[in-house]
Amino acid sequence: MYRTNTCGELNLSNVDEKIVLSGWVHKMRKMGGMTFIDLRDRYGITQLSFDQEVNPELYTQANKLGREWVVTVYGVVKERSSKNAHLTTGEIEIIASKLDVLNESKTPPFTIETNTDGGDDLRMKYRYLDLRRASVRKNLELRHKMTFETRRYLDNLHFMEVETPVLIGSTPEGARDFVVPSRMNQGEFYALPQSPQLFKQLLMVSGFDRYFQIVKCFRDEDLRADRQPEFTQIDCEMSFVEQEDILNTFEGLTKHLFKTLKGIEVPDFPRISYADAMRYYGSDKPDIRFEMKLVEIKDLTVDRNFIVFDSAPYVGAICVKNAAIYTRKQLDELINFVKRPQVGAKGLIYLRYNEDGSLKSSVDKFYSEADLKLWAERCNAKPGDLILVLAGETESTQEQLSDLRLEMASQLNLKDKNDYKCLWVVDFPLLEKDKELDRFFAKHHPFTSPKPEDIHLLDINPAAVRANAYDMVINGVEVGGGSIRIHDSEMQNKIFTVLGFTAERAQEQFGFLMDAFQYGAPPHGGIAFGLDRLVSLFIGLDSIRDCIAFPKNNSGRDVMIDAPSTIEKEQLDELGLTLIKPKE
Amino acid sequence: MYRTNTCGELNLSNVDEKIVLSGWVHKMRKMGGMTFIDLRDRYGITQLSFDQEVNPELYTQANKLGREWVVTVYGVVKERSSKNAHLTTGEIEIIASKLDVLNESKTPPFTIETNTDGGDDLRMKYRYLDLRRASVRKNLELRHKMTFETRRYLDNLHFMEVETPVLIGSTPEGARDFVVPSRMNQGEFYALPQSPQLFKQLLMVSGFDRYFQIVKCFRDEDLRADRQPEFTQIDCEMSFVEQEDILNTFEGLTKHLFKTLKGIEVPDFPRISYADAMRYYGSDKPDIRFEMKLVEIKDLTVDRNFIVFDSAPYVGAICVKNAAIYTRKQLDELINFVKRPQVGAKGLIYLRYNEDGSLKSSVDKFYSEADLKLWAERCNAKPGDLILVLAGETESTQEQLSDLRLEMASQLNLKDKNDYKCLWVVDFPLLEKDKELDRFFAKHHPFTSPKPEDIHLLDINPAAVRANAYDMVINGVEVGGGSIRIHDSEMQNKIFTVLGFTAERAQEQFGFLMDAFQYGAPPHGGIAFGLDRLVSLFIGLDSIRDCIAFPKNNSGRDVMIDAPSTIEKEQLDELGLTLIKPKE
Repeated sequence: MYRTNTCGELNLSNVDEKIVLSGWVHKMRKMGGMTFIDLRDRYGITQLSFDQEVNPELYTQANKLGREWVVTVYGVVKERSSKNAHLTTGEIEIIASKLDVLNESKTPPFTIETNTDGGDDLRMKYRYLDLRRASVRKNLELRHKMTFETRRYLDNLHFMEVETPVLIGSTPEGARDFVVPSRMNQGEFYALPQSPQLFKQLLMVSGFDRYFQIVKCFRDEDLRADRQPEFTQIDCEMSFVEQEDILNTFEGLTKHLFKTLKGIEVPDFPRISYADAMRYYGSDKPDIRFEMKLVEIKDLTVDRNFIVFDSAPYVGAICVKNAAIYTRKQLDELINFVKRPQVGAKGLIYLRYNEDGSLKSSVDKFYSEADLKLWAERCNAKPGDLILVLAGETESTQEQLSDLRLEMASQLNLKDKNDYKCLWVVDFPLLEKDKELDRFFAKHHPFTSPKPEDIHLLDINPAAVRANAYDMVINGVEVGGGSIRIHDSEMQNKIFTVLGFTAERAQEQFGFLMDAFQYGAPPHGGIAFGLDRLVSLFIGLDSIRDCIAFPKNNSGRDVMIDAPSTIEKEQLDELGLTLIKPKE
Repeated sequence: MYRTNTCGELNLSNVDEKIVLSGWVHKMRKMGGMTFIDLRDRYGITQLSFDQEVNPELYTQANKLGREWVVTVYGVVKERSSKNAHLTTGEIEIIASKLDVLNESKTPPFTIETNTDGGDDLRMKYRYLDLRRASVRKNLELRHKMTFETRRYLDNLHFMEVETPVLIGSTPEGARDFVVPSRMNQGEFYALPQSPQLFKQLLMVSGFDRYFQIVKCFRDEDLRADRQPEFTQIDCEMSFVEQEDILNTFEGLTKHLFKTLKGIEVPDFPRISYADAMRYYGSDKPDIRFEMKLVEIKDLTVDRNFIVFDSAPYVGAICVKNAAIYTRKQLDELINFVKRPQVGAKGLIYLRYNEDGSLKSSVDKFYSEADLKLWAERCNAKPGDLILVLAGETESTQEQLSDLRLEMASQLNLKDKNDYKCLWVVDFPLLEKDKELDRFFAKHHPFTSPKPEDIHLLDINPAAVRANAYDMVINGVEVGGGSIRIHDSEMQNKIFTVLGFTAERAQEQFGFLMDAFQYGAPPHGGIAFGLDRLVSLFIGLDSIRDCIAFPKNNSGRDVMIDAPSTIEKEQLDELGLTLIKPKE
């Protein structure tokens, strides 16, 4: 027997019990004839005590242990003289009577502590040691709890988890599909799914009614900090529902997760249209932990011969509370910030509303104090506030103001990671125009249904058609999105036409779904959540990587196992493949 | 709103309620001015009633519906005059007042009934219609419940579900790996995991202690009825445990599943050694729903000049209860059965123990009635029984007797699908000799630990070394298997040597695990269950295919979506690949 208890559970109520513990040597301290060892397992840390006078042999044995050795210890629980309030086991220690070394350990390349001295690369190479750190393990514990509670909530509502295939068909537009050559069907390839979209819609045609799946998806694209070639979705679909039913069901799920995982009661989610999100936040994923809304002031700026504003279709401002104290240097830095190519503004106008009530702007040459007063009023500014103004094309300027707004929130510490503000963004545009290709694309995907009241616009003004599509946004992060689908073949064909699909191409790409829809498709819709992102958000991580047990780096490599790697020629032969440029 | 209730829940307590239902038109019956429609959804079937006299327009509309159309119906719940005891809703019907057609349907290519007229190929091509059949849907409902209850049981015991990567490294011996060419690392490939074995062991090194995952695994091999290129495992691993702990934990899981899914209390599982399983059943996955054990009678057959038995190292018998009535023709068929290449015996000796106490065998020429009496006694035969005898090499003959035993059980209807007999087979041999290659292979896998008491045999008689390895067997099906792993590098190297691995090759293939083991690996072990097989067994299916939503056929094809398929040259170029034989 390796243990009677874990290292996280003994306390004063166990005093004088004989116990056995197993774990890793976390720390050792020697103090005048005594050696103390912190023994660690997944559940916590327990102090072992070895007394030279009482048991010199055992004392000597204990002193030979090293960091991260695996041991079993037999002993008795005793109350500690100097207690440690940070540990649940901090009131007791184990007076050891026997020690078995289960395994020795080389010295790890970094410390197994929350604030480790290991850099990112080293930690990833030795991920199995990195995962010993309580901070990383807790991320994965929360991930486990999140999937478990998600399943519990959905099972309760009669959702069925159905596994859809991982080896699916490659589609002509699936350029970012990972493909898998088939040995039994040489020259042919499976693809790995970017999402189970088509299969979950087929399940609705099958009458499955309430489907979900927590499922790996794959996308072969250039990676960023927040992207992985394989990622996990909470994928859901429902039949005989309207948008409201889906929003309520998954708002309920999110509340359930906040309640059970973080003990937080989240209020009802506000719903904001895409148009309003752009108007007031310049973003379709607004962070509403703070106000600082965009204010349009174009009408207040005209006729003063300021050509920059006069020539701009849009002039917008944000009012930054209590930031009139910003120095000239700080303001210059903000100007540099908005001019960065990632933001792309041409310049920034500021207006200081000083504590004494006076107004000072970078465009005093053009605008009188009375003019500026009107700006301040429109922005609901108070003495001590700073107004920042950008001008240009409507949409791009709104987006620049959004970047600036988020930057100001960071500078002023308005992004409290423990404050969670959830909302729904609804009424997304159905279509998005690619200006270069002069072609419409589906903003969500080609099965998204238009709002009934906008259908008449499909022919005359496609860009104005709104969709039954929605995103769930938490603290400026899009954690999930979905839509009510088209279940009517005629409407589907209409949309394909608008998207420029020929009947042939639509058949080639979505044929089996189109076929299925001929046999009685119910009205249906769904949503998918990015699990990695949701977990990161609950933990307050900046990257999704630390809530994934074995993540890949930005080149899509697993540096621990050194994958991907070359394969042998025999295997390529069996697959009927050759490399264009053979590797050395 | 599409519905107030489902089609499976209304009963007499709802009489006079106004309700809305949505679903599929399952059946229509016209009876003198009345039309009755069975409306179906996932939850059941409810009868709708349309009366020509009461509402002629609606009656006409109803008569225009077709099979599998999707409709919403508004109406009032009424008690039926002729009740249907087979339906939970069989005591009521809906007097319809309004009908909306949500979608029409072409006539399905087969009937949506438990006993459908659709053949296998048609059903697979139209799997989305096949899944409408209650019998198929119920399989997937049970599958959902099984995974949910598995998670609930394991979560309760502090197991953590951890997702391991799907894009992993290819190993030199991974000839049956599916590979995935990397676009970002041209010329290199990921592999899809045949199991998360290495990762779960790494998680133990990380101190995760109790891991599980319900996870897709992949194997690119020729398929049989019971194999799929992608399959699902319940994969588990524990640290600081001995074999007993694992057996108890997962015997507990299995009992929990039988209890919650089938309401069956399964008794404690017997444990039988591999050696005894072979001796008494000729199989390492014995079906113990019936006795008919193998009995060795070699010693009773010698010195009678019957060269077949005299020259055979093994002579074994099974006693088939009440089968002395088998005719000469039936016995000839049994002889043909054992001679089939799949069984491979040279012949079959029978001994009839007639009701009158006389004995009649096919070897009366060599053995006296007194001789035969001894055989019958050894076999514990009674008048009316039939004894069947095979002879040859020990192991192969035992296996032939096992085949014969299972065949006799089928013929005599001893395999009751609702009788579940579970057991553990333990003490598997550590190694298996490939006679052709004259080389030992790991029977389970190369990390399986030998029994401590057998370690001394590693050098002198490797074939005799038993492993800490175990299989769970239910009704003759191996549903799960696992082992206690080696956690000591020295022992691991020893085993690699016995397996003929050079240090180099071991490093190449398992390097990162070997490295990890240098940093304090705990004692650990685990088990993996084949979910598809377990679900099939619980349902009593002959193939695993009908408990998989979208299975592939025996050529690894998904005929519904027509995968795998060719991909475009541009995509191959991006991956740095060319086809050896380009497709037309």
